Amino acid sequence: MSSSFGTLFRVSTFGESHCKAVGVVIDGCPPGLSLTEDDIQPQLSRRRPGQSAISTDRQEPDQVMILSGTENGKTLGTPISLQVANKDQRPKDYSSMRDIPRPSHADYTYQAKYGIRASSGGGRSSARETIGTVAAGAVADKILRETYGIEIVAWVSSVGEIESQAADPETITRDQVEQTTIRCPDNEAASRMEAYVADLKEMGDSIGGVVNCVIRGVPPGIGEPTFEKLEAKLAQGMLAIPATKGFEVGSGFSGTRQRGSIHNDPFTFKDGRLGTVTNNSGGIQGGIANGEPITLRIAFKPPATISLPQDTVDFVGEKAVLEAKGRHDPCVVPRAVPIVESMAALVVMDMVLRQKARQAFAHMF
Amino acid sequence: MSSSFGTLFRVSTFGESHCKAVGVVIDGCPPGLSLTEDDIQPQLSRRRPGQSAISTDRQEPDQVMILSGTENGKTLGTPISLQVANKDQRPKDYSSMRDIPRPSHADYTYQAKYGIRASSGGGRSSARETIGTVAAGAVADKILRETYGIEIVAWVSSVGEIESQAADPETITRDQVEQTTIRCPDNEAASRMEAYVADLKEMGDSIGGVVNCVIRGVPPGIGEPTFEKLEAKLAQGMLAIPATKGFEVGSGFSGTRQRGSIHNDPFTFKDGRLGTVTNNSGGIQGGIANGEPITLRIAFKPPATISLPQDTVDFVGEKAVLEAKGRHDPCVVPRAVPIVESMAALVVMDMVLRQKARQAFAHMF
Amino acid sequence: MSSSFGTLFRVSTFGESHCKAVGVVIDGCPPGLSLTEDDIQPQLSRRRPGQSAISTDRQEPDQVMILSGTENGKTLGTPISLQVANKDQRPKDYSSMRDIPRPSHADYTYQAKYGIRASSGGGRSSARETIGTVAAGAVADKILRETYGIEIVAWVSSVGEIESQAADPETITRDQVEQTTIRCPDNEAASRMEAYVADLKEMGDSIGGVVNCVIRGVPPGIGEPTFEKLEAKLAQGMLAIPATKGFEVGSGFSGTRQRGSIHNDPFTFKDGRLGTVTNNSGGIQGGIANGEPITLRIAFKPPATISLPQDTVDFVGEKAVLEAKGRHDPCVVPRAVPIVESMAALVVMDMVLRQKARQAFAHMF
Amino acid sequence: MSSSFGTLFRVSTFGESHCKAVGVVIDGCPPGLSLTEDDIQPQLSRRRPGQSAISTDRQEPDQVMILSGTENGKTLGTPISLQVANKDQRPKDYSSMRDIPRPSHADYTYQAKYGIRASSGGGRSSARETIGTVAAGAVADKILRETYGIEIVAWVSSVGEIESQAADPETITRDQVEQTTIRCPDNEAASRMEAYVADLKEMGDSIGGVVNCVIRGVPPGIGEPTFEKLEAKLAQGMLAIPATKGFEVGSGFSGTRQRGSIHNDPFTFKDGRLGTVTNNSGGIQGGIANGEPITLRIAFKPPATISLPQDTVDFVGEKAVLEAKGRHDPCVVPRAVPIVESMAALVVMDMVLRQKARQAFAHMF
Repeated sequence: MSSSFGTLFRVSTFGESHCKAVGVVIDGCPPGLSLTEDDIQPQLSRRRPGQSAISTDRQEPDQVMILSGTENGKTLGTPISLQVANKDQRPKDYSSMRDIPRPSHADYTYQAKYGIRASSGGGRSSARETIGTVAAGAVADKILRETYGIEIVAWVSSVGEIESQAADPETITRDQVEQTTIRCPDNEAASRMEAYVADLKEMGDSIGGVVNCVIRGVPPGIGEPTFEKLEAKLAQGMLAIPATKGFEVGSGFSGTRQRGSIHNDPFTFKDGRLGTVTNNSGGIQGGIANGEPITLRIAFKPPATISLPQDTVDFVGEKAVLEAKGRHDPCVVPRAVPIVESMAALVVMDMVLRQKARQAFAHMF
Repeated sequence: MSSSFGTLFRVSTFGESHCKAVGVVIDGCPPGLSLTEDDIQPQLSRRRPGQSAISTDRQEPDQVMILSGTENGKTLGTPISLQVANKDQRPKDYSSMRDIPRPSHADYTYQAKYGIRASSGGGRSSARETIGTVAAGAVADKILRETYGIEIVAWVSSVGEIESQAADPETITRDQVEQTTIRCPDNEAASRMEAYVADLKEMGDSIGGVVNCVIRGVPPGIGEPTFEKLEAKLAQGMLAIPATKGFEVGSGFSGTRQRGSIHNDPFTFKDGRLGTVTNNSGGIQGGIANGEPITLRIAFKPPATISLPQDTVDFVGEKAVLEAKGRHDPCVVPRAVPIVESMAALVVMDMVLRQKARQAFAHMF
Repeated sequence: MSSSFGTLFRVSTFGESHCKAVGVVIDGCPPGLSLTEDDIQPQLSRRRPGQSAISTDRQEPDQVMILSGTENGKTLGTPISLQVANKDQRPKDYSSMRDIPRPSHADYTYQAKYGIRASSGGGRSSARETIGTVAAGAVADKILRETYGIEIVAWVSSVGEIESQAADPETITRDQVEQTTIRCPDNEAASRMEAYVADLKEMGDSIGGVVNCVIRGVPPGIGEPTFEKLEAKLAQGMLAIPATKGFEVGSGFSGTRQRGSIHNDPFTFKDGRLGTVTNNSGGIQGGIANGEPITLRIAFKPPATISLPQDTVDFVGEKAVLEAKGRHDPCVVPRAVPIVESMAALVVMDMVLRQKARQAFAHMF
Repeated sequence: MSSSFGTLFRVSTFGESHCKAVGVVIDGCPPGLSLTEDDIQPQLSRRRPGQSAISTDRQEPDQVMILSGTENGKTLGTPISLQVANKDQRPKDYSSMRDIPRPSHADYTYQAKYGIRASSGGGRSSARETIGTVAAGAVADKILRETYGIEIVAWVSSVGEIESQAADPETITRDQVEQTTIRCPDNEAASRMEAYVADLKEMGDSIGGVVNCVIRGVPPGIGEPTFEKLEAKLAQGMLAIPATKGFEVGSGFSGTRQRGSIHNDPFTFKDGRLGTVTNNSGGIQGGIANGEPITLRIAFKPPATISLPQDTVDFVGEKAVLEAKGRHDPCVVPRAVPIVESMAALVVMDMVLRQKARQAFAHMF
């Protein structure tokens, strides 16, 4: 069950890097929604490998197919099966890694856990697994946008030491993000980031970065205390994305250095209801959305697979030098942008459904 | 179901700040474990209010009682019900807050979510809710320690701008942490932190801080990809603790600024199996423990309830000044230490059980 | 987690026959409901031991206490903890059974499963465990009745070979059921049943019986295909009640002998919507309520604990004669009536909430 | 989530009668198992339509394909995606049923629930949905057989009024069942059943029947009280199969007529451990397997779709005569045999894994 996520809008993903297909089954999608492959493909295409000079060279069209759950372009309320074929596998690239576990990759831990592992491509630990998340997230995203006007936008805020100027969470759009290859809305920083990543790719090295995300328009009341607080499920979702090492909501770690008298967000009256003057809370108080933009930051480490030689040991403990051959991203953050947005959509969609169930009784007592 | 956590070792907490009792039911505890209240009380006593001059003045003995699930001091394998009475309630302290939602507290969001809220004490959003987590966590902690020698130690690493010297995750003990009131193992920093917090309490203000946590001795293989990766469930658990704003595993956000060639943890042979030379991964690769210490950092914001006057608005949007009267912590991190340890124990315990189920078949095929 | 039931209206029970208390935590009860102990006690009192000459002699007042989740008599939307003390334990009655597992009781299987078991009273396999179900069921029952006018009525339809005349599922009420001690609305049959059970109690023997249940007023659309079809969850719930051996919905086993042309329920127009002329379906088609009364039959075996001597073997396989001393019901069906109603309420309540979440989106696309 | 089943061995099915494909994702299959399509196909072929003169005429080869979760014929421990294409759809056969809901079918209830429904073939309520269950069940069945020697055998025990002679649950095999088209191991009764069903098919009518099932070799201790008692989950699983109306374990409804002194199963010593002399308990006591054969009976109603004209009303309540055209089974029980076996395998497999997790700690305290 650990490849499933969500309670009422529940997704179950499957697929390894080099098997026949990867995909997802969505159970609990509301009926009557207009849905075709065209609603899902754009986010998959933003995620797909080979999309730019600074991503991996693996070429996958990642065309999605809806197998069930819709008829005549409408959802039936039944499970929606979404599938993407794996096409460009090169298992022989991985021969050197059969005996030498890649440092900071999952070869060793998968072997320790399962006693067996996919012989190439990272198997289930590959970022190809995120195709299911992105496909399902596109469905959730569409529902949230069409019913509540909820907008979810992620962007790259730093690559290595290069930080972009702060974007305005109130106004930033996916279109703005899409204007640079690296998906950073600060053009000047973006140029430096792209050049830096290109250099690292040339060198066979890699670099980390930070993705910011804002979720706008979530109505007050969304989120399920105690263990499924909105930020708790967002944290789970984000840390389930490969290569993530950290998560912040609102003021995050910088908020730990502030006094309450400064950090607190005073209430004010705006847009016909209570809002807050500042937003150090990042749109969530007590695990429940307060109506302000939900602001997140997610840390991505440098990709573990690099082609520079690494001194390590093989599976039996003998010293070895690994020179990896696979095709890999020098920096994952541009491709992580739609993944972060999708994960956010999955979390919020599930929480909205759960709050709706509760509210249905509110007027009945 | 959002007040439950875990799959095989599943805890369900209940209780508001000012109801009759708070507690937890543990479903799935293995049978045959020696267990009495004495195993549980120490962590509850580290968490209880009124324990020191720099915590809240609310006085609660927080004595736990086992109601079911054991006989003659042994667990039966059936649900264990643990309960703590609420004794020192002062609902009248909260009269000013009935009309004015506390900034950055959950009064407004609970009202928005449920259309009703506990009239005093924060209700379910109060940190008293964590009693259930700590009580159940003490049981998990005992099992993990006795069966695998797993040690979980948390400590305060910063309060506001005051940072302690780095502790050694390989060796730090709870005894060392317990030597200062603020639970920071760096005595010099601890003294400054304590003085600072005492000053803020005097002023009616509050301050944030960071709790570090290490989990030592987790066998390689623990953790459930994809959505229940070990770091993902730890992130969920930690962000479910009141007042948390951020989470890091291993190198965290600082890892985003490093190159892969530096950040990667080369393998080596030690203690009879593969280990890593460095531990930027924080003991987890691909969502699965690799046997190295699991290192976490959790950000806590300054408590929202302060006695300094705050300019805000009341529930109907009229301008108001709030001067809170309740008894609250000026800084939550010392009391958060056992909560973080408990949440870590709950996550690991559940994951160990799940891996055990899998491994039972390993030799049978 | 196996002591929990339901997805959105989720109950978690605890407690053995002879521990300090038994009870339940309800997670997901809608907020704003008027709720006090008086709403819950009546069903518990119908379930309690010692209520009549033909039930067990164990005397338990079974007074329920609400520990959390309400304030001023209204639910807060937070977990509701309900508790009943165990008062009349006589562990020494069970000394003969420490070495000899009771035939058809759970002594042996609990020992096999857990490697340990409660030394007296049946532990968790005791029908005292159903107190949690009944307490939580009373809450669900109240909500369903007040919001949808859903009525749930169970009654005894047979005891041993004695069958009552068919009751009319459209009209039968709890008041009618309550008019006889055995809870059979056919007075003549009831008298014979009561006399028969009294004789068996005298003899130290026991007898089985059938409980019928009708759920009226469930709106069309309730039930969650595929694996959580309404009848599937009802079947699970009913077979989770101790001593049950069978379940039927609608025509049940007798329907297997009919042709489709006879068995099918033709549609008609009534009460402003489609209804059916007959109700062999028992109010459910394809796992979803069709608006007709939902009709169930549940088989209860004769209680396993009898005082007649039984030739059997002890735990180590030596021949032995067991003469049980505990206080037990000669026939469980009268006390099973409120348990069956409660289980039905729990299932329907959860399903209604889930359908409400779905329907909230129906008008939004 | 209602299309998922199981906790540790969790299956999620998808697919309507007339969509592109139906299938299942298995999450939690132990790693290292030899598994190819050949292990799965036989049960699917026993289930497939068009297999005999007395089944539906729809022709589907129902060839299964493994898309993920295995490599070189071994399971990886990751989600296994299994898929079967829908090939022989004739949507135009269903035109008359677009306006007239089929009596005792799910057209009306699906419309009531979802506000939309598949325009042909029964959509998700079609028995084609059971392909996922059977495919996943074949995997579970293989594991149980290879590791514990657990044998699961189902057979037809009655069709309409025609009852077969009792089969011996201790010895009956699938080979014996397979010797007649109707899958009844009593040749004489089978002949009469087959002739009867052929007649009804000719007449355009249908008939119900009973499927018996035995699960042999389940070790004592399997089953999860309280709400997931072994019989409770079996009941849920069986009632989730389309067209089921009843469930019995052990003595079932006939046990309600017996006295405890007769019904109780005395213990004896056999095969090196405790067993029982009789088996009225049907192999389960207190929700936990006792090591004896688990015996079940499942009632199947006559298929709702018949070609005889039926007086009913259309969706708007106008009187109408329905003459159904689709291709349907006159009696489902022969094809239900592998479905019942598969559902039993899924339940037991999940329960075995859960008990294994518990037992792993047994020797550690």
